[in-house]
Amino acid sequence: MSLDKINSIIKRRGFIWKSCEQYGGLSGFYDYGHLGTLMKRKFEDIWRNFFLGLNPNFFEISPSLIMKEEVFKASGHLDHFTDPIVKCSKCDFVERADQILEKQLKEKFEGMSKEEMTELIKKHEIKCPKCGGALTDVSELELMFPVDVGAYDKIRAYLRPETAQGSYLNFSQEFNALRKKLPLGLAVIGKAFRNEISPRQGVYRTREFTQAELQIFFDPEKVEEHSNWDDIKDYKLRLLPASSRDKLTELSCEETIEKFDLPKFYVYYMAQIQRFYLEVLNYPREKIRFFELNQEERAFYNKLHWDFEVRLEALEGFGELCGIHYRTDYDLKAHEKLSGEKQEVFFEEKKFIPHVVELAFGIDRNVYALLELFYTEREDKSILALPLKVAPFDCAVLPLVKKEGLPEKANEIYQELRKQFTCFYDNTGSIGRRYARQDEIGTPLCITIDFDTLKDNTVTVRNRDSTEQVRVKINELKVKIEEFLNEA
Amino acid sequence: MSLDKINSIIKRRGFIWKSCEQYGGLSGFYDYGHLGTLMKRKFEDIWRNFFLGLNPNFFEISPSLIMKEEVFKASGHLDHFTDPIVKCSKCDFVERADQILEKQLKEKFEGMSKEEMTELIKKHEIKCPKCGGALTDVSELELMFPVDVGAYDKIRAYLRPETAQGSYLNFSQEFNALRKKLPLGLAVIGKAFRNEISPRQGVYRTREFTQAELQIFFDPEKVEEHSNWDDIKDYKLRLLPASSRDKLTELSCEETIEKFDLPKFYVYYMAQIQRFYLEVLNYPREKIRFFELNQEERAFYNKLHWDFEVRLEALEGFGELCGIHYRTDYDLKAHEKLSGEKQEVFFEEKKFIPHVVELAFGIDRNVYALLELFYTEREDKSILALPLKVAPFDCAVLPLVKKEGLPEKANEIYQELRKQFTCFYDNTGSIGRRYARQDEIGTPLCITIDFDTLKDNTVTVRNRDSTEQVRVKINELKVKIEEFLNEA
Repeated sequence: MSLDKINSIIKRRGFIWKSCEQYGGLSGFYDYGHLGTLMKRKFEDIWRNFFLGLNPNFFEISPSLIMKEEVFKASGHLDHFTDPIVKCSKCDFVERADQILEKQLKEKFEGMSKEEMTELIKKHEIKCPKCGGALTDVSELELMFPVDVGAYDKIRAYLRPETAQGSYLNFSQEFNALRKKLPLGLAVIGKAFRNEISPRQGVYRTREFTQAELQIFFDPEKVEEHSNWDDIKDYKLRLLPASSRDKLTELSCEETIEKFDLPKFYVYYMAQIQRFYLEVLNYPREKIRFFELNQEERAFYNKLHWDFEVRLEALEGFGELCGIHYRTDYDLKAHEKLSGEKQEVFFEEKKFIPHVVELAFGIDRNVYALLELFYTEREDKSILALPLKVAPFDCAVLPLVKKEGLPEKANEIYQELRKQFTCFYDNTGSIGRRYARQDEIGTPLCITIDFDTLKDNTVTVRNRDSTEQVRVKINELKVKIEEFLNEA
Repeated sequence: MSLDKINSIIKRRGFIWKSCEQYGGLSGFYDYGHLGTLMKRKFEDIWRNFFLGLNPNFFEISPSLIMKEEVFKASGHLDHFTDPIVKCSKCDFVERADQILEKQLKEKFEGMSKEEMTELIKKHEIKCPKCGGALTDVSELELMFPVDVGAYDKIRAYLRPETAQGSYLNFSQEFNALRKKLPLGLAVIGKAFRNEISPRQGVYRTREFTQAELQIFFDPEKVEEHSNWDDIKDYKLRLLPASSRDKLTELSCEETIEKFDLPKFYVYYMAQIQRFYLEVLNYPREKIRFFELNQEERAFYNKLHWDFEVRLEALEGFGELCGIHYRTDYDLKAHEKLSGEKQEVFFEEKKFIPHVVELAFGIDRNVYALLELFYTEREDKSILALPLKVAPFDCAVLPLVKKEGLPEKANEIYQELRKQFTCFYDNTGSIGRRYARQDEIGTPLCITIDFDTLKDNTVTVRNRDSTEQVRVKINELKVKIEEFLNEA
């Protein structure tokens, strides 16, 4: 029930909707409206501020979205980033072959060759799950989108399927530009593209999406230490290890490294990620966990892989918001091998290729999770009780009526506030309706200009969550709003 | 000479470099390093703040980068967005056919069909300008990059060649979500892609680029008015009209509408654009102008088209930073026709399709222009005397030496300042060398922590432009920096 209401707000009010709707939509592609754009940008700012703030040597870069074929030859995407698919010859239904096999035979088939799967489908006479028609032989779908560049002799390139490769390609240059220090962090916030077979789950899994990925390059001999370990050693993590998936355990970081033989340099970032969600974004503790992927489940270049997950109604279970990948020196070595360019650094009297821990966030699913988790109702009315820092507008400015100088005064206040805050101006409809409209999109404060304002230079400030209204002097308004937003 | 130095800084220090350099580069694609990313983001923030601040009903949205073929069928890109090209059959040199003809025959050939051009090349026996070899027949190069989406029955889509179409597709939904008011402004800041034949001029013309485009939807019957006209009516514009290209004229906005029969709603935005460059970004007045395109030069859907241009060494002349296009109702009507979805609005007792004035900025060329225009030298040393608001770092924090408690104190100050400012920490090399390094990347203030700091809690603040040094109390540092940055 509430899911329908959330989805209606998301679409109707201007958060997110399907791309190209006029032309029937394009499956797996979404547009952000004005509210979605404000919220997404605020989430990115908070992310940047928190994760780049962990070390003065962490920076953001912006590599191109289209990169040469060689990049993905080296990274392994060209050879391995495919899905095995089958199609029904009767109803044209398309699905991943391993998933069809899994459902019918109740076994795992990830990693099996397409010939083996075709064989199995024939042997077990597996039919289309939709209409019972015959299935085609298994073929492979490349998940990257190719792009051919140039006029006559076109050069094969690809839209990046992850932002990470751009950081690996720029590592050497940035290491030199940034005074040759480790750890070095290179973050990218930007689009990536995957030709998913059948994108479902709305904005949670799409073909065009925004990632925020931080690659942390470090000396592999120091993986068992972290200079700020003491800050988090007693911090308790919520863990679902691969060895016992039926039971969540809470362990301190110190206990975690001992019990699961995990390196300090890795667990430090697990702790910071959980802090980000619990302390910065006020996620409910009981809905989050770290989920460990076992050797079969994780990519072959990942030595360790835990996902940070949250429980969502829309998924009827837990969904990943962020992955923490110990990618070792796999990518830098691969690029060194194919390009012939040395990736070694000389640091603290040693020559070596750095290792990488990657923090990989999907921004769209994070925006969606916030919208779902913080939706609530009050007397049958919808409230988006979003963390103050990600609400699209900090405040709304509302003249009580559209006459007798109130709009002019309200506009004056609006113009002043918008220099510092994201701010919406609305003069249409009853004041109660306007409050309700702002509650529905999560605006923490409504500022009402009435006839008293003209007399005594005060305004009414209404709080989204308590619905409390207080009178504030106009000349104290900016400071009060700032204090309120920072307290959160 | 200075161009070489600028380009060296841009590359060596981490502003911008070629994408995929390890693999020989990919022509027309660039990566932004950590400094370029900071600067680009600051430029976007300033742009957003200035142009969305012109009207409370202007907002940013984020449509998908990949859109369905129908979108570009309607917009005319599919049929018209091509370049006529020829190739040398001997040396493989590729060039636009009209440009080859133009150089040899000293006439304009834009808009001529490929058959006519092939004819002309044969008739005048025009050869390859590089090697004298024979040229192929003229063919057409599609400038959009196609992307095929899906598994078996692929859907043809394209990477957007401009951000504008996303705003047109979302107009109806946003008009409804935003309380049905005009003018309505929808801005997009994001990537666009064009398969340019031979991208030259470095980052000034690329195949993947960032645009900031604002589409302003308004009532066409009100094109001869603007509610804030009085603010700018006496403001003087620097104009190079199509009718007299040999002489720049300075006219007030009021004179401009009379002399060139331009509508107020259009000229208002010309004035705001010039103000943006002169007042916000401190561009030198003598290097800027508006250049009018005549009917042959402008796109067929543009009723009016002036470019805002700046004189750049790298181009050996003027280059466009922004175009102001009166696109009328061309795009909305085209989408209405193809999709069948009404684009009419009901506003102030009338039904009509709004007209559009578009402000279209190329972000990459704006970043480049800033780097070139504000480069200067002092005693043979390079200074990027950037406007304070676009300098990558607001300040640098520098402990005088790496011992006796100075790094600890410096780090404390750095951690406090980075909450509010973009801030770089550097403890390596002599203090003079470190000042020079910051001057070279445009950092307005250097904050030095020395032995006196430990005694009296003051630091030295050094100004990039005056090289003046003053002592400031640590507890006043934030306020002083803020004041300094805001004064600019």
